[in-house]
Amino acid sequence: MPEKRVYVDYNATTPLKEEVKAALLGSFDDFGNASSMHASGRNARAKVEEARSSVAKLLGASAEDIIFSSGGSESNNTVFQTMRSLAGELGPGEGGRREIIISAIEHPCVLNSGEYSEKLGFKVHLIPVDEFGKIRMDAYKAALSEKTLFVSIMMANNEIGTIQDIKEISRLAKEAGAWVHSDAVQAVGKIPVNVLDLGVDYLTMSAHKIYGPKGVGALYVRKIQPHKRAPLFPLIHGGHQEEGLRAGTYNNTGIFGLGKAAALAMRDLEEYQRKTSVLRAKLKDGLLGAIPEIKINGHGKDVLPNTLNVSFPGAEGEAILLSMDMEGIEASTGSACASGSLEPSHVLMALGLDPGLAHGSIRFSLGWDTNEDDVDYILQKLPPIIARLRAMSTIT
Amino acid sequence: MPEKRVYVDYNATTPLKEEVKAALLGSFDDFGNASSMHASGRNARAKVEEARSSVAKLLGASAEDIIFSSGGSESNNTVFQTMRSLAGELGPGEGGRREIIISAIEHPCVLNSGEYSEKLGFKVHLIPVDEFGKIRMDAYKAALSEKTLFVSIMMANNEIGTIQDIKEISRLAKEAGAWVHSDAVQAVGKIPVNVLDLGVDYLTMSAHKIYGPKGVGALYVRKIQPHKRAPLFPLIHGGHQEEGLRAGTYNNTGIFGLGKAAALAMRDLEEYQRKTSVLRAKLKDGLLGAIPEIKINGHGKDVLPNTLNVSFPGAEGEAILLSMDMEGIEASTGSACASGSLEPSHVLMALGLDPGLAHGSIRFSLGWDTNEDDVDYILQKLPPIIARLRAMSTIT
Repeated sequence: MPEKRVYVDYNATTPLKEEVKAALLGSFDDFGNASSMHASGRNARAKVEEARSSVAKLLGASAEDIIFSSGGSESNNTVFQTMRSLAGELGPGEGGRREIIISAIEHPCVLNSGEYSEKLGFKVHLIPVDEFGKIRMDAYKAALSEKTLFVSIMMANNEIGTIQDIKEISRLAKEAGAWVHSDAVQAVGKIPVNVLDLGVDYLTMSAHKIYGPKGVGALYVRKIQPHKRAPLFPLIHGGHQEEGLRAGTYNNTGIFGLGKAAALAMRDLEEYQRKTSVLRAKLKDGLLGAIPEIKINGHGKDVLPNTLNVSFPGAEGEAILLSMDMEGIEASTGSACASGSLEPSHVLMALGLDPGLAHGSIRFSLGWDTNEDDVDYILQKLPPIIARLRAMSTIT
Repeated sequence: MPEKRVYVDYNATTPLKEEVKAALLGSFDDFGNASSMHASGRNARAKVEEARSSVAKLLGASAEDIIFSSGGSESNNTVFQTMRSLAGELGPGEGGRREIIISAIEHPCVLNSGEYSEKLGFKVHLIPVDEFGKIRMDAYKAALSEKTLFVSIMMANNEIGTIQDIKEISRLAKEAGAWVHSDAVQAVGKIPVNVLDLGVDYLTMSAHKIYGPKGVGALYVRKIQPHKRAPLFPLIHGGHQEEGLRAGTYNNTGIFGLGKAAALAMRDLEEYQRKTSVLRAKLKDGLLGAIPEIKINGHGKDVLPNTLNVSFPGAEGEAILLSMDMEGIEASTGSACASGSLEPSHVLMALGLDPGLAHGSIRFSLGWDTNEDDVDYILQKLPPIIARLRAMSTIT
């Protein structure tokens, strides 16, 4: 057993906060089907709607703009499905908008939704990024046209933490008459996210990235007129839940937990940013001081306060991970959703890293329970690991 | 406040069993992303796989046949989406199977998936049922042909509890070369469900109907060759979870709870059947003795042991519900997923009930916490409610 366990993989998932655990426990009593007419049903429904308000407030939206889902992947897929249905309805006679714009560093969920859309005959533009992970705005502008159906660009990258200028991306998309979606799963709870300010039509968030439960998330859908939302078609057909837009019995446990997590994320955002950015700086400076030739990936300024992606030339990422894991340090190479893959990170490749360097990169993502001791522990354990792996390596 | 609360709406949803609560609490510690390589991830993954085995055992399947989902609606929609994709791939040149067979008494989820399929150009056969809710086999046989893509018929009805002969339905479908799916959400945990015996290719189950958490379920997918499943296409594209067939971070809380609920459902099935059928008989006989002119809906023998659907001529269902609710009795008219609708139950209409009678019907669904006192309480409170409503009624 390692002397201690240091979890620095908060971008993969977060533990539940104590107050969120209490909310989940509340669902043990309030177990009624929120669609039922009786008291147990009405109690559950009231708490579902309370959670919806908390999520809305966190995003600067109104409660009626929030649709609950089973998580970020479902929210993203719902937007893609909606857009494909819309294009089918519009038909070629309506201008025939059948082009989709995404970035090269999207989460596998959006990339694979794009790929699936291509199979169905849509054209997908993959916008490149610069060496810091920022969308190349010239390429984005060049891709936008009267054929653009929608744009889906993530607000903050899960692997390198780079934050995009979604406001400007939205503005340009709107100018071209396209719909705009942003996967903000990694941004919500870490930086301010205000949907009205961003100007997006759709925005995805997930509970388990903000110290809420897994298996639940939300999709923001903009009101385009007083009583009319941006188009939305169900991915899951069935009961009348969520106005028929998302069938399935309300997930009391998940939704109550999401609501509480959202309320806490809103209350504590500034403290979170202060806390994690100080620790990130300490980790970054410590690593730069202790290990030669390393490279910090991502943007220097527009970056999530908790995310530090580091390349260790001459060492292999999985070997670093395993060695750290034996010391109780839990981090990741790239995204958990892409793990098991032997390909180098598509995000790091998009930054222009060579495959060897991309393979030797580690994401540290800090969170509420990270403290100075944890960072010191990493700074104590990691340098000898890298030195040993470099000595063994035949790569360099 | 009513003197006591009698929840008899277990077909809408169930409370968590104590052991399931403990499993959910376990996920508070084992919060790791089950796709992560480190110890926290591996621990979570081991428990996910343990849950998968429990679900498989309950259904008489192997662990690798089980795909986790966000619940019954998603599982059902995944099958419909798969079948539509398959038809698209097969193309008209492959025999052009583009006909779907469902029953007239399916859950709204399957009915609406059918309706959506029709919009996409599929032909949907809605097989009628007899007065007891059994599929009319002559109509079913007549609908089956070399054009049948798949059959989706529920194993047990949520409103009236009638159980179908899925084994024979599967056999006939296979004879016609069609795929077979059964929505067994209401059957699992109440009657024996063995997928091999039933001969289905796909089967849907949901945790919250078997004293597990909401927001999680599973889909059984048959192995058609040693290492090959019946076709399955993702509804939710994204990460590599579930072999790329269902993207999204594993829902530890939900999956751990589902696994425990499945294990308990398997262990306690006989006791459940004995207990609920005795109470159901007591409630049925009591109501028949105490209230004139009532009608029991559903099959006399092939019926869920916990489900009793009763028509009260001369009284209106929602009025009965509200009056019962004021006395603390929680039941339902039809399905929670169809509530809010002013239409009479499509299930009762399919039995041939006239709309007035269908409107005056109540589903009592009993469960583990129901006891004799609860039934006595209903038998004490309901007769005067019906008498009062009948006296007020202008219907009769």
